[in-house]
Amino acid sequence: MRMTDIDTLLEELRKALINDDWKSAVDLVEALRPPDQAELFNELPEALQDALLERLNPEDSADIMEELDDEDAAELAQRMDSDELARILNKMEPDEAADLLGDIPTAQVNRALLSIEDAAEILPLLEYHDDSAGGLMTSADVVLRQDITARQALEHLRTVAPDAETVYYLFVVDDDVRLVGVVSLRELVLCPPEKPIQTVMDHDAITILVEADQEEAARLMARYDLLALPVVDAQNHLLGVITHDDLVEVLEVEATEDIYRLGGVTQDQPVDTGIGTTLRSRVPWLVLNLGTAMISAFVLSIFRDTIAQFAILAVFFPIVAGVSGSAGTQTLTVTVRGMALGLVELRDGLSTLFREGIIGLSNGIVIGAIVALVALVWQSNPILGLVVGAATFLNLICAGVAGVLVPLGMSVLKIDPALASPVLVTTITDTFGYFFYLGFATLTLVYLL
Amino acid sequence: MRMTDIDTLLEELRKALINDDWKSAVDLVEALRPPDQAELFNELPEALQDALLERLNPEDSADIMEELDDEDAAELAQRMDSDELARILNKMEPDEAADLLGDIPTAQVNRALLSIEDAAEILPLLEYHDDSAGGLMTSADVVLRQDITARQALEHLRTVAPDAETVYYLFVVDDDVRLVGVVSLRELVLCPPEKPIQTVMDHDAITILVEADQEEAARLMARYDLLALPVVDAQNHLLGVITHDDLVEVLEVEATEDIYRLGGVTQDQPVDTGIGTTLRSRVPWLVLNLGTAMISAFVLSIFRDTIAQFAILAVFFPIVAGVSGSAGTQTLTVTVRGMALGLVELRDGLSTLFREGIIGLSNGIVIGAIVALVALVWQSNPILGLVVGAATFLNLICAGVAGVLVPLGMSVLKIDPALASPVLVTTITDTFGYFFYLGFATLTLVYLL
Repeated sequence: MRMTDIDTLLEELRKALINDDWKSAVDLVEALRPPDQAELFNELPEALQDALLERLNPEDSADIMEELDDEDAAELAQRMDSDELARILNKMEPDEAADLLGDIPTAQVNRALLSIEDAAEILPLLEYHDDSAGGLMTSADVVLRQDITARQALEHLRTVAPDAETVYYLFVVDDDVRLVGVVSLRELVLCPPEKPIQTVMDHDAITILVEADQEEAARLMARYDLLALPVVDAQNHLLGVITHDDLVEVLEVEATEDIYRLGGVTQDQPVDTGIGTTLRSRVPWLVLNLGTAMISAFVLSIFRDTIAQFAILAVFFPIVAGVSGSAGTQTLTVTVRGMALGLVELRDGLSTLFREGIIGLSNGIVIGAIVALVALVWQSNPILGLVVGAATFLNLICAGVAGVLVPLGMSVLKIDPALASPVLVTTITDTFGYFFYLGFATLTLVYLL
Repeated sequence: MRMTDIDTLLEELRKALINDDWKSAVDLVEALRPPDQAELFNELPEALQDALLERLNPEDSADIMEELDDEDAAELAQRMDSDELARILNKMEPDEAADLLGDIPTAQVNRALLSIEDAAEILPLLEYHDDSAGGLMTSADVVLRQDITARQALEHLRTVAPDAETVYYLFVVDDDVRLVGVVSLRELVLCPPEKPIQTVMDHDAITILVEADQEEAARLMARYDLLALPVVDAQNHLLGVITHDDLVEVLEVEATEDIYRLGGVTQDQPVDTGIGTTLRSRVPWLVLNLGTAMISAFVLSIFRDTIAQFAILAVFFPIVAGVSGSAGTQTLTVTVRGMALGLVELRDGLSTLFREGIIGLSNGIVIGAIVALVALVWQSNPILGLVVGAATFLNLICAGVAGVLVPLGMSVLKIDPALASPVLVTTITDTFGYFFYLGFATLTLVYLL
């Protein structure tokens, strides 16, 4: 839905609400798809949100609650009485209902659970950590016994008549609810009706353990192109299912996490958290950066006599340090992303190092020559040109090496390579850059002056 | 599939191949799932790859070709004779076949097309740009006329018996192949058999224009949680369908692109491109960075007399410039990602600016005080502490403002905000940092010495 459409609809909705014309307002919202309903709903003031939600039919209210940010949904839920909350929870997907209940006070949860029809389905989902496969799963709507035929399976499906799109894979279990196979709706529809499902199903279904990380679940679903992934315990009991909408969400959250970590931000949600929370997630990183900057400052302090004798040297600090910092960040970025996508493994370390070393060498020759020329022309000092160029050349090789070794080292230490972040690499390029540059300058100082 | 499994399988496969035991080798590969087949296949030398591919049944060969990187698949295809290539192309998904044909020489394409059964399905797909919705789509396997019942639709489905998982949405067209509705396989199975599909289908299906950007297609599918998205022309003729596996691929490619751009890398594929290509994608960025570093160098050259008189000032350059550079990068990262996910729009500019300004102010108070203390204690010079602290304080506010204004400005100019990249923001924080710091130092020089 394009921005103009939302604006037009919002205008219409506001007009209806001002005139107290609830029927038009409800009709307008109910005609939309859930993500558009939620976007519109988000623009309303709290009092109107509460009033509108009460008047919508519970399916639409549930859709909106599912689409809202977790925090917004929790706030809204806390303003409802328990009957209203139960009415909406009844129509929510079990995994979304469990997520919401996990975010509101226990007293309210207990009151609401008394009036929820599917409490037995939701309760087990409350147990698992949000970031685990268990935290992501919803209950499996359609479970088949292994001794039936395709026709019987389809009949059972029509009886259950699930309204969710979780039906594209059907799970076959034994008497002890252990998963013995998976059959897709496509196979069930296309095969002869009297065929036993045991002969149709995939006996070697891909599963994930309930306590596994959600990222592992997403990787499996993306790799094997799965619409749904059954979640099991160590004894292979079927506990639930992760659906493809969760896959998309996890992929986006993981990409955000990597982007943030590379940018020196450790907050894990791309939402408007409070300024206090934001500061707590950013200041430690800046203090770390301050600590690493002290290393460069220390190197500079060693050479303070050289700088005092030839202050023009300081003019080229941003060039010697900055360009190599950028080159190091380029290498780091490619390496970290390659590791996240599984394209660069530890065993590829040497070849990656060699490759980026060659690139650093080539960068060094090109950029080193340009920098030398700039220094020569600007300050009319050929020795200065040589010193600046040579320092830049060596530092660019350093940048390539550091850009590979830092994330690989993090990975050996079992730390997320994205946390390596440009801060560590630029500390190395700053420090080595100042060292090469001022070292050469000190050695050639008599010719420079 | 875990690394150890692949290694074990590779060992077994190598043993079979050394003993010329093709039957075991073929059995081993054919028992695996396509992504695992491709991973194993990738580890073999070229000659063995060619020999193995000939001996596998064409379905498995096709699966492997689909899973390989585009470049690897094209190289392999170019080593095949046209019969062998056609044999494999016949079993590939039309969109994958079209992608492959787009990467090999025209003469070979023409020869292969003569022996391909589905040439009529593949040819139209060759027309569209790789990054467009048309480049992503495959042909719609099952198309229904609008005057049939659910039972007739299921019968038609059984006749076509598509082996792809594209059947979960069925497309309903009029006599002129214009899309009039979409019905999900779930609805078709669950509704009474004699119900006309016109009363079951969604008349207002979400579609995408064939020339739209692939990212727009991915956004639509992610937002509305679609398993497939019909691709149409301006007259609403159904041209093809984008399936959910493409969605996952596009989301990963787009995240990679954003991560790379933020890291100053303009290459668009996370694959091992040649060193020459890599250099061409990275060096221009470093030259741009060199240009912006010149601005900071120019500011420093203005103050060279101050530096000459009090060289200790240079020791604190990395601290004043570096910490603010990191803070600016943090703000930039959050803003750019927020814009990519649609959470920050242009109209939120002022509130985002205010928010990040407050964060910059708070950072400035905390970090400025620490920096002042460090300078005071290290150099036993209270005036120097004051100068360093005040410059850091002001520069951190600058960093917050620049981190918001640079990407928003890029967006107004219709440039991808991710291209703003830390390079531009750190240029601003470097330049302002040196200016504040050396400006204050020049004004207080008599007290500093």
